[in-house]
Amino acid sequence: MSPLRAWIDPTQARPATTGSRLRLSSEESAHLVRSLRARRGDALVLLDGEGRLLEGKLETADGEGSIVEVTRARTVEPVLPAIIVAQGMPKGGTMDDLVRTVCEAGASEVVPLETARCEVKLDADRARTRTTRWQQQAVEACKQSGHPWLAHIALPARFEAWLASLPPCAPGELRLTGSLEFDAQPVGELDFAAATKVLWLIGPEGDLTAAEYAAARAAGFRPVVLGPTVLRAENAALACVVITQTLAHRR
Amino acid sequence: MSPLRAWIDPTQARPATTGSRLRLSSEESAHLVRSLRARRGDALVLLDGEGRLLEGKLETADGEGSIVEVTRARTVEPVLPAIIVAQGMPKGGTMDDLVRTVCEAGASEVVPLETARCEVKLDADRARTRTTRWQQQAVEACKQSGHPWLAHIALPARFEAWLASLPPCAPGELRLTGSLEFDAQPVGELDFAAATKVLWLIGPEGDLTAAEYAAARAAGFRPVVLGPTVLRAENAALACVVITQTLAHRR
Repeated sequence: MSPLRAWIDPTQARPATTGSRLRLSSEESAHLVRSLRARRGDALVLLDGEGRLLEGKLETADGEGSIVEVTRARTVEPVLPAIIVAQGMPKGGTMDDLVRTVCEAGASEVVPLETARCEVKLDADRARTRTTRWQQQAVEACKQSGHPWLAHIALPARFEAWLASLPPCAPGELRLTGSLEFDAQPVGELDFAAATKVLWLIGPEGDLTAAEYAAARAAGFRPVVLGPTVLRAENAALACVVITQTLAHRR
Repeated sequence: MSPLRAWIDPTQARPATTGSRLRLSSEESAHLVRSLRARRGDALVLLDGEGRLLEGKLETADGEGSIVEVTRARTVEPVLPAIIVAQGMPKGGTMDDLVRTVCEAGASEVVPLETARCEVKLDADRARTRTTRWQQQAVEACKQSGHPWLAHIALPARFEAWLASLPPCAPGELRLTGSLEFDAQPVGELDFAAATKVLWLIGPEGDLTAAEYAAARAAGFRPVVLGPTVLRAENAALACVVITQTLAHRR
């Protein structure tokens, strides 16, 4: 069984050491006490999204502001390679699930893209609202998965503008796109051993257009085959993260 | 863009060759014509779940029984290794999504398990009803993903009875379980090159119990770590399938 996990602001977590007493936010307290039925004395882990893992126990289980006594404080380095998922936005709830799922698996950044075949068109206001919601999904993902690093959710961008904004591909950076094109390479043939950053580009439900694939290639993206079947966007995104981690950490 | 795909009974598909004319079921016809707006002359691919891929075009787009003229008939071998997902059942819709997702990714069999921490308890009637629904999800998965082999969905079984029913581990068979135990091995260290069958055991939302992990080990299951974070059951199941395919086909 996974331990109880709660979120703590980095400004509180940074100076904490064994014996520190931290007061949880009212939202976290209410969730712990009312939804998860946490009680005084229960063990839990606090995450701050900056790598800190504070193990502790509930000194007071107060639905408004529980107090946690820290029993062990440690910091975990970010997982390498950093995995960035640039995703042609699927419709509504699917993008919400996708963000949460790739963050649970350990993606470090999600870039929502408006591509030619996206059915989602966001004006500036809605883009900000959605990004705030997705950033909250990323927090929930840390708590769900125990991942101590919070993913960054970028503001939605138009595909061409985003592509044009990318710097030249750096040493240690891989740019990959899941593709069904005839010359796409099986992902298992790639060498991830020296990769420090892997940038995945994934099309929306209707896929990228031929012109978008061509533009991506010109920007250094290599088309790769993820497996023997065609995966839906949300499953392709998870597959990219999991495959990267598996191949990068292969002995 | 993926081509239109429709389901065809193997008894119709088996003898089909170039030039054959096949009549689709009323369900498939209605879906193609009414939901996907297919029109006379549209290209499509027929799948029968036994490896046959019949490319063709719609000769009549009739919502009751469209006729397809076959332009190319081919048969694809099953993907090796065969991947079986034995899954502690998560609640309701989550298991439905899980079945569809692992079948889309190419699992060859799903075994729904009732484990100690499953909240789902099915009597014989409900078990049959659910299995029928999951088998239909497997058909939908073939159509979604283009996978030409239909996964088999086993009747739900109790964990202990299922474990006791397994024959000794065969040469070429790997038995693995996603685990957070201290001695679990990173999945990237395993050698899948000679595997012909990989049987994954995945716990439900509350995980397997220590006693269940011990029983699984005694039956030849090796605990492996799937990645740096704790994945929800449905994402762990997809990760197992994708990781197996990636590592098995690594050159």
